[in-house]
Amino acid sequence: MEVEVKVRIDSPAEMEKSIVDMGAYFLKEVVEEDTYFSHPCRDFSTTDEALRIRNGSSLTYKGPKVDMDTKSREEHIVHFDSEMEMRGILSALGFREVARVRKRRRYYRIGDVTISLDTVDHLGHFVEVECIGEYGECREKVMEVCEKLHLKEFIRKSYLELLLEKENQRGTT
Amino acid sequence: MEVEVKVRIDSPAEMEKSIVDMGAYFLKEVVEEDTYFSHPCRDFSTTDEALRIRNGSSLTYKGPKVDMDTKSREEHIVHFDSEMEMRGILSALGFREVARVRKRRRYYRIGDVTISLDTVDHLGHFVEVECIGEYGECREKVMEVCEKLHLKEFIRKSYLELLLEKENQRGTT
Repeated sequence: MEVEVKVRIDSPAEMEKSIVDMGAYFLKEVVEEDTYFSHPCRDFSTTDEALRIRNGSSLTYKGPKVDMDTKSREEHIVHFDSEMEMRGILSALGFREVARVRKRRRYYRIGDVTISLDTVDHLGHFVEVECIGEYGECREKVMEVCEKLHLKEFIRKSYLELLLEKENQRGTT
Repeated sequence: MEVEVKVRIDSPAEMEKSIVDMGAYFLKEVVEEDTYFSHPCRDFSTTDEALRIRNGSSLTYKGPKVDMDTKSREEHIVHFDSEMEMRGILSALGFREVARVRKRRRYYRIGDVTISLDTVDHLGHFVEVECIGEYGECREKVMEVCEKLHLKEFIRKSYLELLLEKENQRGTT
């Protein structure tokens, strides 16, 4: 089980200072390009699921969120050897590409908790706090980090949802 | 494009002699354990498609057959790193395990053509002749090998279909 919260921030520089001051250490910076797919006969936007290819090398399924405030959910991931073949299989089975999300992400670690400082194309800056393991224990650890970083207004929506929302707003104005 | 024919045989020993006498060389012997899945909203038995995991390490999609006599069809394959995670993704997306097919297969090669001598659990002995590449060219090469081996009665059904057929017959008698 993955327990995860997300908060929008204004200043990544200030947040980074708070993260390091708290005792977390910098892990790595990555660029993540995600391609999201729709299901052939299920509406992922209403079932709260997601299927994506990340950086052309892994396939991830995310299940519906299981509580009211965090983004905790079932998750499965496989790494594969050919993006072209993986896309061929998905397409033949009726999965369609619906959106791409691209972000620069800086990972930090403290104990069992991973913090990521994200800059998402077309959306802005965010921080995510995550722990993978037993639900109750992870929830407690994540909340402790959030308190230290003064993170309060949790966003349950995924970057995909925020991006589609923004596109829809642009479409209706 | 994969051009492939299949013929039931009585004596693998005699067939092996013919294959080697023709000039083909032995490549390898493998055991293949295939798990087949149903689609969440499409009946693969009527659309003539298949999705399977082979030996816990690859995922293959096979499209509908494109001609009347051979088993030629679109095919996509990826290799992945975790069978448990792959099964988790398929299951969450609504794909269900429908059957397992296990066979011992001896591969032979002549030119661009692959010949496999199969012993399939619960089904018996078969020989398959296959070529991957441009359709017309491959078809000709496959037919030439078939003529040399006196292979005539082509079976268009997959081992999966033959196995399900046999199970249904057992169920109705």
